[in-house]
Amino acid sequence: MGDNRRIRLGMVGGGIGAFFGEVHRMAARLDNRFELVAGAFSSDPKRSRESGEQLGLDSARCYDDFANMVSQESQRQDCIEVVAVVTPNHLHFAPAQAFLEAGIHVICDKPLTTSLKEARQLQTLVIESGLLFAVTYTYCGYPMVREAREMIGRGDLGAIRVVQVEYPQQWLSSAIETTGQKQAAWRTDPTCAGVGGSLGDIGTHAFHLCEFVTGLKVERILADLKAFVVGRQLDDNAYVLLHFNNGARGALWASQVAVGHDNGLRLRIYGERASLEWFQEAPDQLQYTPLNQSRRTFTRGSDAVGDSTAQLTRLPAGHPEGLLEAFANLYREVADQLVMQNREEIASTPLLPTVDAGVRGVHFVETAVASAGKGGIWLSLE
Amino acid sequence: MGDNRRIRLGMVGGGIGAFFGEVHRMAARLDNRFELVAGAFSSDPKRSRESGEQLGLDSARCYDDFANMVSQESQRQDCIEVVAVVTPNHLHFAPAQAFLEAGIHVICDKPLTTSLKEARQLQTLVIESGLLFAVTYTYCGYPMVREAREMIGRGDLGAIRVVQVEYPQQWLSSAIETTGQKQAAWRTDPTCAGVGGSLGDIGTHAFHLCEFVTGLKVERILADLKAFVVGRQLDDNAYVLLHFNNGARGALWASQVAVGHDNGLRLRIYGERASLEWFQEAPDQLQYTPLNQSRRTFTRGSDAVGDSTAQLTRLPAGHPEGLLEAFANLYREVADQLVMQNREEIASTPLLPTVDAGVRGVHFVETAVASAGKGGIWLSLE
Amino acid sequence: MGDNRRIRLGMVGGGIGAFFGEVHRMAARLDNRFELVAGAFSSDPKRSRESGEQLGLDSARCYDDFANMVSQESQRQDCIEVVAVVTPNHLHFAPAQAFLEAGIHVICDKPLTTSLKEARQLQTLVIESGLLFAVTYTYCGYPMVREAREMIGRGDLGAIRVVQVEYPQQWLSSAIETTGQKQAAWRTDPTCAGVGGSLGDIGTHAFHLCEFVTGLKVERILADLKAFVVGRQLDDNAYVLLHFNNGARGALWASQVAVGHDNGLRLRIYGERASLEWFQEAPDQLQYTPLNQSRRTFTRGSDAVGDSTAQLTRLPAGHPEGLLEAFANLYREVADQLVMQNREEIASTPLLPTVDAGVRGVHFVETAVASAGKGGIWLSLE
Amino acid sequence: MGDNRRIRLGMVGGGIGAFFGEVHRMAARLDNRFELVAGAFSSDPKRSRESGEQLGLDSARCYDDFANMVSQESQRQDCIEVVAVVTPNHLHFAPAQAFLEAGIHVICDKPLTTSLKEARQLQTLVIESGLLFAVTYTYCGYPMVREAREMIGRGDLGAIRVVQVEYPQQWLSSAIETTGQKQAAWRTDPTCAGVGGSLGDIGTHAFHLCEFVTGLKVERILADLKAFVVGRQLDDNAYVLLHFNNGARGALWASQVAVGHDNGLRLRIYGERASLEWFQEAPDQLQYTPLNQSRRTFTRGSDAVGDSTAQLTRLPAGHPEGLLEAFANLYREVADQLVMQNREEIASTPLLPTVDAGVRGVHFVETAVASAGKGGIWLSLE
Repeated sequence: MGDNRRIRLGMVGGGIGAFFGEVHRMAARLDNRFELVAGAFSSDPKRSRESGEQLGLDSARCYDDFANMVSQESQRQDCIEVVAVVTPNHLHFAPAQAFLEAGIHVICDKPLTTSLKEARQLQTLVIESGLLFAVTYTYCGYPMVREAREMIGRGDLGAIRVVQVEYPQQWLSSAIETTGQKQAAWRTDPTCAGVGGSLGDIGTHAFHLCEFVTGLKVERILADLKAFVVGRQLDDNAYVLLHFNNGARGALWASQVAVGHDNGLRLRIYGERASLEWFQEAPDQLQYTPLNQSRRTFTRGSDAVGDSTAQLTRLPAGHPEGLLEAFANLYREVADQLVMQNREEIASTPLLPTVDAGVRGVHFVETAVASAGKGGIWLSLE
Repeated sequence: MGDNRRIRLGMVGGGIGAFFGEVHRMAARLDNRFELVAGAFSSDPKRSRESGEQLGLDSARCYDDFANMVSQESQRQDCIEVVAVVTPNHLHFAPAQAFLEAGIHVICDKPLTTSLKEARQLQTLVIESGLLFAVTYTYCGYPMVREAREMIGRGDLGAIRVVQVEYPQQWLSSAIETTGQKQAAWRTDPTCAGVGGSLGDIGTHAFHLCEFVTGLKVERILADLKAFVVGRQLDDNAYVLLHFNNGARGALWASQVAVGHDNGLRLRIYGERASLEWFQEAPDQLQYTPLNQSRRTFTRGSDAVGDSTAQLTRLPAGHPEGLLEAFANLYREVADQLVMQNREEIASTPLLPTVDAGVRGVHFVETAVASAGKGGIWLSLE
Repeated sequence: MGDNRRIRLGMVGGGIGAFFGEVHRMAARLDNRFELVAGAFSSDPKRSRESGEQLGLDSARCYDDFANMVSQESQRQDCIEVVAVVTPNHLHFAPAQAFLEAGIHVICDKPLTTSLKEARQLQTLVIESGLLFAVTYTYCGYPMVREAREMIGRGDLGAIRVVQVEYPQQWLSSAIETTGQKQAAWRTDPTCAGVGGSLGDIGTHAFHLCEFVTGLKVERILADLKAFVVGRQLDDNAYVLLHFNNGARGALWASQVAVGHDNGLRLRIYGERASLEWFQEAPDQLQYTPLNQSRRTFTRGSDAVGDSTAQLTRLPAGHPEGLLEAFANLYREVADQLVMQNREEIASTPLLPTVDAGVRGVHFVETAVASAGKGGIWLSLE
Repeated sequence: MGDNRRIRLGMVGGGIGAFFGEVHRMAARLDNRFELVAGAFSSDPKRSRESGEQLGLDSARCYDDFANMVSQESQRQDCIEVVAVVTPNHLHFAPAQAFLEAGIHVICDKPLTTSLKEARQLQTLVIESGLLFAVTYTYCGYPMVREAREMIGRGDLGAIRVVQVEYPQQWLSSAIETTGQKQAAWRTDPTCAGVGGSLGDIGTHAFHLCEFVTGLKVERILADLKAFVVGRQLDDNAYVLLHFNNGARGALWASQVAVGHDNGLRLRIYGERASLEWFQEAPDQLQYTPLNQSRRTFTRGSDAVGDSTAQLTRLPAGHPEGLLEAFANLYREVADQLVMQNREEIASTPLLPTVDAGVRGVHFVETAVASAGKGGIWLSLE
């Protein structure tokens, strides 16, 4: 806490327009702990440079490719301290290896690599170098996921018996990879995605969550994979039965043809004495039910939640974390207006609440107090 | 879009530890459109300066009070362009007036002021100056609130008949203002909060939302106010009946003694042909029900949602906006570790997913594919 | 309990096709405590007789009108013991009075009468006669409504502060009373319904529920009524503010133009220490939230529920009471088939599960056990 | 419809106190299509006779055992037309066989028998005799389950791809079979229950529902069974992977150690164009989501629902079918009072709404109308 300096961050991939690169940048900005100073944002050198400039970077640090970036950054006094690798799956390994060899910490998207062999090479490098290597299994960053892990760790559920995890999505229900949709194209192409389709893209999230929250290890698995969409080479629906190291049983379902689900990651854990349920689309809640008792809904930010969970929480209970984005929308609209040249345009803002809205609120309060003060009578608001 | 420069932002109030000041700063950082460069963060000059320094500001621009800030900033070439006023209600007026008079745009918390007279003075100043004055009625920044407004505006509901808005909270159910809780103390004190208790603090949000979403104006009101907690001077429960300018009827309920609710703002609007429901604790959803048809759940980011709503959305459907915070938690943990002196501490990170978690995921995928490839047999994961 | 004899029941109104008459009869049959033996089912003598005969009654006890029914039944040895009055509102008073005067107990629909004067006359008759007079405020028969009343009665919530009750429906959103819809016609006609529209039809249910569950009395009210549909003479939207005898405040909203709601009766009660919420469309649940604690969901039939509630429960927890109807559907389909003349039709039952479905289930079990017994392998189900 | 005569019903098992026998009887009574006239209600002749007498049967038709019942009933002119077999699993076969051989239709609980061999014997008998044989897979009697089947049958979902069915319960989480709980004892005993534990008891329901709703057949299965409770001989948790005859994939999860679930049967079906979800604890709703569109909630009784579903519905939309039970509770309380000897007790009914409650409601309406009539002023309710 004492050391609030901002850490020098680099990025590989994630040029302007790449959806997930901007998510990484917003996350890095939120707590003001990082400063993005360098990047090789695209395999196209021109696009890489333009992206960096739009992000306000020094053009000397907008690199043509990650190899240049490694060699030049490592010679600088103010070299980046950590790099975020946000490329498609098959392009994680090479840059991750190069930055580790240069002594630079790494933040990398999942799945780590497209083969176990490469994954283990990185693991060895990390052990030898002592560097930090974070994999962005995003969902374990939710406060209530941490809370679930703590509850299980201290025995609130008794021995774990059954683990149900599912991750249904609908977005690959038809062959959109043949229509020019880039996300779909690389995620269904074995040369980019590796051997797993839905398995690698979302199944790995679900699998990590199981082990993360329970603290158990899966020992044996049995899988039933299927590609429903004609012509698709990788699974778009995966069932995996799970045997855990303590004797618990489980099932994992990942699907990208589950019509009606956007991002329905759901985890349910049944112990001898209680159960937990967490659903990613309502992430601030955790359902806890002791055997033969009523179901309780724990909420992020409430008194029922432990200290370590509370530390990950930026807003009080009842304010979903998306409130920050709502708030940021107002700030964005202020910014949009302030960069306009013409003051008259400002006067015509239709949606941003202005002083008029402020006056109206005060008017409401005073009139309501007056109405009640007279015993509850009707008064005009003009 | 073309102009991506960051706008120079100042802040009055919101010193380190003040909950809402940090919310303003996170919102301002999220899209990287503002740079906080000056502030008078506290009525205690020493605390103001310390806050500014912790935020990484130039110490010359950490001011003792807003009066100094106005006079000195307005003489600088790089003067702040906009100031955020995040003080308690009774301290909005003076700084807002001063900055407007100095030609600086203002972002101000709600309720605007503690009297209608002051509110109208600010309104006049804004009209005369042509400056931007934004009031942070946060909830109108939610994408699905904007969507609701658009739907009503284009006639999806037909003529509006009934508006039900409620804002129940539980946090003032007992006399916590007498226990040293600062937020409770000023919000229940007429000299700081003005004439409305729950009415001013949350009723104004609810009232703004009604008019914002429907595009109607409330013409007459009748209020029934009550302070349930013994010794409390301002209302902690408010009922207000509403007559709208088109003949619609409505009721507003604001309560801070509604046990069980954290921040339960809910808006329901009934038209001749359809109805809408929005609930702040699940802000990504909007319930829409045409007369005698099935209820439909619109979600932020889905195809059903209009363009202007989509522009306010940073993540695809199914990813609640709190996902950004989950993601930011991982980044924060990376930062925490990188500022540690001792590399060995890094090795002991318990929760941040590291290369080991990455390897495990790849192992899972390869083994599952192998199991399915052999017709669905059990395989070991070691 | 010892006395299981079936009580002789008569009915006024509720001929074949009248929706609510059949609901009364099903309710009376469910526990096998009543035997319907007489009736004046319609103001049309022919229709009354036909209805009685279809119901299997002795034709001598199918009367032309309630006056005949009173005079003839009271001369029989096996006279009805109780009569159910299920006519429109304005036709409750006369039969209720006549049966009471003949010494016969009464079950009567709500609202009791169309004027307070008549209501009080019946009250006097009941007091003088010592007869039973039940008014079918149906919702207080739900087990979880009884549970709520018990919890409040024993102080689980502390002193009650706020009562929110609402009863929104959509069915009168347009002028269906002008289209031949009989239910709508009499309920919107002051000569049949009395002075209240939505107020009498559903507001009285909501009002009864408030007082029933809290054990409090409403002392003062203020109402805001509106008829939104052009030409309608009675309110179709009603707001009523409530002051209770212990100082609690409340609001009642009844609406029959609330698009999207079928029968959305919802009651929320806030005390000093906890709150309760009950929703008629999910009647087996009761939400209970102690101050600053997690929300708990009590369910009918669970261990958390008291003895007197348990007595009203016919099925275990998790089996919604509608399960009885699902079960009855199967029995009904059996009956439908058994009354067919042609056995061949029976063989063609498409939906009723037959022995084939039974065999299939046993096949599934044996095959699954065999699969697991061999360590989890794929087996054919033929 | 024309033939409303009541069918003569017999029962084997289900003596007074046996939970499921009474459910059968209530279901049979609801629509007044059956008359229970004979039974062998218990293996204990005395208990059988007492049960029959309490149910109001002619004592000559209360039999010591099913063998006597078959032989004597078949000699009567007014012989039962259909028998309901409601004994534990291992006692289904013998009476079912005997009644079929005597030419009497059968209604039988599930699972049909404890071995496939016996099940097929019954199947043969049914084919040869042309008799009706219904198996009470209760859940297919729900209107919205029928609606789902119709929707799939007419192609609303396109080709079915994925079927997720789960049936979690908590009641066998500990070894309650060793504590004298009779239901638990026979259901966990292989000699009574057969080879399947949770598989037979609830897995067969889930399995039937899959095939019933989709109209598909399961061709291959793979099972992973486990008994978690120490000493238990039959599975209490079952995973079964499913391959359907059209290429669809599925998973079935049945568990009786799933803490927190009472009777959580849930079915989800994903087709090429849309998906459906139905949950037994909210049986009046069916979630329907077309690809990339908003989720729609169909409700029993609404306009969106087809004719054949509507026929199975006894109450309008928004009135959960449990409303009938709430209503029946009021009737039951009337009956309880009318069989009391002492009229004074009647006067002290605490909960049944009486004429006083009726008067109160009328008073409310008249006062509210008066308040509104004076422009919305406070009036006393005494």
